[in-house]
Amino acid sequence: MNSMSPDTFITRLHGLLPSDCVLSHPEELRPYECDALSAYRKTPLAVVIPETLEQVQATLKLCSENGVPVVARGAGTGLSGGALPLPGGVLLSMARFNRILDIDIENRTARVQPGVTNLSISKAAEQYGLYYAPDPSSQIACSIGGNVSENAGGVHCLKYGLTVHNIQQLEILTMEGEQLAIGSAALDSPGYDLLALMTGSEGLLGVITEVKVKLLPIPETAQVVLAAFDSVEAAGTGVTATIASGIIPAGLELLDNPAIRAVEKFVRTGYPVDAAAILLCEIDGAADDVSAQVEQVRQVFLDAGAIDLQVSHTEAERLRFWAGRKAAFPAMGRLSPDYYCMDGTIPRKHLSTVLAEIGRLSDEYGLPICNVFHAGDGNLHPLILYDANQPGELERTEELGGRILEFCVAVGGTITGEHGVGMEKINQMCVQFNAAELTQFHAIKEAFDGQQLLNPGKAIPTLHRCAEFGAMHVHEGKLPHPELERF
Amino acid sequence: MNSMSPDTFITRLHGLLPSDCVLSHPEELRPYECDALSAYRKTPLAVVIPETLEQVQATLKLCSENGVPVVARGAGTGLSGGALPLPGGVLLSMARFNRILDIDIENRTARVQPGVTNLSISKAAEQYGLYYAPDPSSQIACSIGGNVSENAGGVHCLKYGLTVHNIQQLEILTMEGEQLAIGSAALDSPGYDLLALMTGSEGLLGVITEVKVKLLPIPETAQVVLAAFDSVEAAGTGVTATIASGIIPAGLELLDNPAIRAVEKFVRTGYPVDAAAILLCEIDGAADDVSAQVEQVRQVFLDAGAIDLQVSHTEAERLRFWAGRKAAFPAMGRLSPDYYCMDGTIPRKHLSTVLAEIGRLSDEYGLPICNVFHAGDGNLHPLILYDANQPGELERTEELGGRILEFCVAVGGTITGEHGVGMEKINQMCVQFNAAELTQFHAIKEAFDGQQLLNPGKAIPTLHRCAEFGAMHVHEGKLPHPELERF
Repeated sequence: MNSMSPDTFITRLHGLLPSDCVLSHPEELRPYECDALSAYRKTPLAVVIPETLEQVQATLKLCSENGVPVVARGAGTGLSGGALPLPGGVLLSMARFNRILDIDIENRTARVQPGVTNLSISKAAEQYGLYYAPDPSSQIACSIGGNVSENAGGVHCLKYGLTVHNIQQLEILTMEGEQLAIGSAALDSPGYDLLALMTGSEGLLGVITEVKVKLLPIPETAQVVLAAFDSVEAAGTGVTATIASGIIPAGLELLDNPAIRAVEKFVRTGYPVDAAAILLCEIDGAADDVSAQVEQVRQVFLDAGAIDLQVSHTEAERLRFWAGRKAAFPAMGRLSPDYYCMDGTIPRKHLSTVLAEIGRLSDEYGLPICNVFHAGDGNLHPLILYDANQPGELERTEELGGRILEFCVAVGGTITGEHGVGMEKINQMCVQFNAAELTQFHAIKEAFDGQQLLNPGKAIPTLHRCAEFGAMHVHEGKLPHPELERF
Repeated sequence: MNSMSPDTFITRLHGLLPSDCVLSHPEELRPYECDALSAYRKTPLAVVIPETLEQVQATLKLCSENGVPVVARGAGTGLSGGALPLPGGVLLSMARFNRILDIDIENRTARVQPGVTNLSISKAAEQYGLYYAPDPSSQIACSIGGNVSENAGGVHCLKYGLTVHNIQQLEILTMEGEQLAIGSAALDSPGYDLLALMTGSEGLLGVITEVKVKLLPIPETAQVVLAAFDSVEAAGTGVTATIASGIIPAGLELLDNPAIRAVEKFVRTGYPVDAAAILLCEIDGAADDVSAQVEQVRQVFLDAGAIDLQVSHTEAERLRFWAGRKAAFPAMGRLSPDYYCMDGTIPRKHLSTVLAEIGRLSDEYGLPICNVFHAGDGNLHPLILYDANQPGELERTEELGGRILEFCVAVGGTITGEHGVGMEKINQMCVQFNAAELTQFHAIKEAFDGQQLLNPGKAIPTLHRCAEFGAMHVHEGKLPHPELERF
């Protein structure tokens, strides 16, 4: 802090906002110490929960003038620690910006405040036969502002795209409290694509104060094909063959045997517990198209070596097929005191290679791993089971997670699909990018936030940090682990 | 130029590259004086046509060290003057980077050099049943590097997206000759979205040296519905009703009566010359889906008041229906010594309002306008007919064009859909964006090209220029023309 003591600063905050908008007592701060990556905790100097744009502006100006860092937070459901507070900093909760401002049926858009939950947008649009497509697992709780900041995906992003493909305009405030309108109501906007640049920028470039999302017509119907395979390779073939056939499933998910068993212990969904892997393939659209494509998918899976096939014929059946997949994360809680959810992406064709390597690493570290996989778009979610009460096990788990992500990069993938980098994967960014690329990222940050006050230390590592970590970028095939050299 | 004379600089260039890679004699330079916006012409200091990455790097380093501006050029088919050379600057032609490096059938991507033409990518992928979706009218000639720089669209971008939605990775060189890899082989990439930021940046941020594009399976079949309407309003209803029905046409084009008549004079395609407007709606996909949706579209158009309907039943018929649309621009040449093609986008629901205003402005300026319109995505191409040999007529045409674009902005649209800003629309950028937003754009430029040497003076106007122009941004409804106030 530059010019004033923490106490004076908090007093100034109380002067700017109604009393219930500023929290500064330790017990008030505790609920904000972490987001959904609860292994990381920090206590902020203060939590600000503004009700108006002017209050957000005033807060940012005060922080900017006094060099106080700001971490914006939506619902705090993020899995990579992007909303982890900074000691001595302000945690800016947008929870009270929870209004749906306008639904434009003709142009199929909704103008909403950032604190609105993902699911409530679809709920509000339902009466017009419309919905908002991206559906992260946390969609009941997660906020659209957080979705934009992390470029959230979900089971259906294979067909309908990530958040960046489903938003049209943003209103943001810079760290100095300057208001910017980004994007446009038309299909394209001139100037640099700041809409995409802001999307997934993890709160480092500005504070989102309004979002205009695209809405889609609710599909007439949807069916799920559930296919069992006796090898992960065969399931992998099923995935690539489906995509190659030209069909674009609404969702295409893979669970490996450990994940299937974990799920079946938790909810009885009738998944074949002896299968090496299952695929869940959802087709949505007009009824005729759906039944025709479901038949195609069945054939593709049979050709790929499916040993068992089921198709949902009622909405109840469809939901039962999905129930297991949706229960996968909670199911881990039954197997193990703790689990660590990874989030890497790979080119689809390396699916079985990567799952084999994950199995090898699981043995090497002696930690069981269940794999739940947005197979269609190559987004892996390995779930590492561990016990935080065993000394050193969290550290070993994090190291194992890092090794998995490095392997994803080695086969041409990335260290995150939809959960963001946050605090969690900051070291792996050194694997993903070289010094010139990281320097370019820092230049972008400089262009928006010269004082480095917005969510500093997240998402983009300093070159110094990468040097300490070992700067293991693989662009020139320089890899930390020799076994990766063959890729 | 900082440190050396133009002659010395050219000598240094000749020292760095093979003799046939550097052009500096006036007669050699003439063909490079303009791109497809031929009303603007400038002679560069030299034209460099490198053959290798190292030669591009060496050229950029020499220019960077000597403060010489660089304009990169693909095929020069751009319509907004983005590749207009700078006197005293280097025109960097990427024409010799014309190789398709790799087609990955499993991952459905093609790795190509920037000088490869748009159409040749689809030609090369055809043997695998794949193609590259974006199809600007100039696709026979335009290069993929130029497509990325302008975020090119085309008739089919309503269904398949703009260039930004159809590319996966870029290799670029910064002005200092630093090599950056942008994007990834996976569905998403961590860090800021530099892939989208580079796309449509009109050569101001870096020089594209390699592009990995996404490929799609060639649709099994395609049919076109040709519908005639006795009012533009009815045609507009046909457009919004089609989109509202949930159908996503591969293309949905509108021609107004002047355009229909112009086209029919030029090529006999059987368009109804008395119709106030026609819609061309293409449906592609699996045969059953297509015939089902074609029937839906026919019904939607009838309900909207179509007075005549034709459906293509053979590939020959389909191509005949499109022949008129594709001939629209050349057809103008028959009607008028010169024509000026505008490129604005609007929210679909304002279609008839905007066409009415264009008609009013056409009368006000006494200049005929034909409208060809990517109606589905709200992208207008008004063609203003004029005679450059009539003193002052070009100026009046440009003023009229400016008024049309300002009206697009007033109804919530933008000043460009797919042609870019370049030199042509730089003043209208002052209408589109306010000072804070333009300042943010300049900060982005600074983050990539601190010396302001890459294509300076294009795409993003200085605040000074906007002040001179009258800084007519409409964010607070401050508009240059009172009649716009009602929007």
